[in-house]
Amino acid sequence: MRIGIDLGGTSVAVGLVDDNYSVLCRTSQRTAGCKDEKELMDRIISCIYDLIKKSGVSTDDIESIGIGCPGSTNVEQGLVVRSGNLPFKNTRVAKILSDEFGKKVYLDNDANCAAWGEYNAGIAKGLDNVVMVTLGTGIGGGIIINGRILHGKENHAGEIGHVVIDINGKRCACGRIGCWETVASTRALIERVRAEAEHVPFSVLGNVISENNGVIDGRSLFIALKRGCKVSKSIFAEYIELLGVGVMNVIEVLRPDMVVFGGGISKEGDTLIAPLRENIGETPTRLEASSLNDNAGIIGAALLHLI
Amino acid sequence: MRIGIDLGGTSVAVGLVDDNYSVLCRTSQRTAGCKDEKELMDRIISCIYDLIKKSGVSTDDIESIGIGCPGSTNVEQGLVVRSGNLPFKNTRVAKILSDEFGKKVYLDNDANCAAWGEYNAGIAKGLDNVVMVTLGTGIGGGIIINGRILHGKENHAGEIGHVVIDINGKRCACGRIGCWETVASTRALIERVRAEAEHVPFSVLGNVISENNGVIDGRSLFIALKRGCKVSKSIFAEYIELLGVGVMNVIEVLRPDMVVFGGGISKEGDTLIAPLRENIGETPTRLEASSLNDNAGIIGAALLHLI
Repeated sequence: MRIGIDLGGTSVAVGLVDDNYSVLCRTSQRTAGCKDEKELMDRIISCIYDLIKKSGVSTDDIESIGIGCPGSTNVEQGLVVRSGNLPFKNTRVAKILSDEFGKKVYLDNDANCAAWGEYNAGIAKGLDNVVMVTLGTGIGGGIIINGRILHGKENHAGEIGHVVIDINGKRCACGRIGCWETVASTRALIERVRAEAEHVPFSVLGNVISENNGVIDGRSLFIALKRGCKVSKSIFAEYIELLGVGVMNVIEVLRPDMVVFGGGISKEGDTLIAPLRENIGETPTRLEASSLNDNAGIIGAALLHLI
Repeated sequence: MRIGIDLGGTSVAVGLVDDNYSVLCRTSQRTAGCKDEKELMDRIISCIYDLIKKSGVSTDDIESIGIGCPGSTNVEQGLVVRSGNLPFKNTRVAKILSDEFGKKVYLDNDANCAAWGEYNAGIAKGLDNVVMVTLGTGIGGGIIINGRILHGKENHAGEIGHVVIDINGKRCACGRIGCWETVASTRALIERVRAEAEHVPFSVLGNVISENNGVIDGRSLFIALKRGCKVSKSIFAEYIELLGVGVMNVIEVLRPDMVVFGGGISKEGDTLIAPLRENIGETPTRLEASSLNDNAGIIGAALLHLI
């Protein structure tokens, strides 16, 4: 058995993964608010101890630990160079965990881990070339070529969210103009929903948001869509168009066997993917929603020893 | 020794490549006007016989033949599925040449061959991950990952010219809107030069074009630039900007060790590449002009047996 850790900007999820690549037990903790490196590492460590306790497994039975981290990582040295939302700076994450648990610790980028999970144990099992697109605050990418994670120089391959699709578009946080994620991330979709809902408050979409105490999240649009909301239909059609442009860009460059979609809204499954397939049109590249969902990152991290 | 063939839309170039990956002898013929598959294949075959005669080599000393073809190719079966400018349709190019010369014949896409040449014998020698960008009528791409050509599904990876960078841009011949090559190919640059020259005929650029009997080609702008032409400076700055967007897109996705530029205007060397490097800014990916120039495709084709 191995432990996989999926570290995000606001929480950490830890899971025990067996030899069939299934998650036997998982637990998570909030990490938002951790003010420095030590506090965050302590939180991760306590979460691992929680898992060991909860699962009743002996630490002797744990073969290795893997962790997927957001931001800029150095895989060879097992460190996080920097990360937008986390108080890490050249933090030797792998060494700290290894010293604590006496196990070999593998580290990689979170998007790579999710792709590695789907490739080894999920919907993309058995394929050679796979791209995982994670829709969230931004758009993350993990690329598998010939069965290996494509790390690229300084471990920075797969930044597909920062492919410019609109040279006259909005400035992205990265500094470039018109990056794909400025219009097709879940955050961009939510912003669009908010603007439309303010514009047309007496719509089905407006009701859905009111019922949710004014909170708009990735599900709001899809709930309204299911109730036949016309405003939502038009937002969604526009979103699929913008999502499709970037997906097709990835296909033009890599022509992978499959593009797998992860992140919260990928749980909508064919509600999201079927219109996207229609938008892309005929292509030998399959488009699929993640089959491991929230466990993709945990399983991929636990299997980093296979690289 | 091996024979490498670089088949283009208007001509075919054939070269004899030695074990040091150098072109010992080369010859070429025009292919424009060949009205059917047979005429084109006969032209290629006669070009190979010309080379053998010219070089004085014995056919016994030729180990294999490789050919790079534009369009959609099937590498395993050695055929050209279709090609925009050539009268090929599911043409068994490799078999026809093999039957004629009694040698093993390898076939791949022309952009892949150019990349393979630079990777094995040119500026990108010894690197793992390389992208070759060929600037011409369109923008071709050849991708090497971990020392192997990335073919992708149906051999269609590397279509980097069709990455959309302007969702509100011009329609491309491929049907998509705002493809990179609609604004950054050599053809797009020439069109821009033509429009500007008509607009400001009494410029240095206008003189350069008049001296060339009104013909505008990839060199016109660079000649005018060297004479200090202000109009040309502004066209060039805009072009570098548009070229840079697409190059950076490729870097975001693949973060290769090097991007190599080929095609006629890459012969301008640092006149083209230095401003491009400045536009891209700090990146671990090196940007370089092709070192094999017109021989890249021939050498890459001759070395297809190394795949």
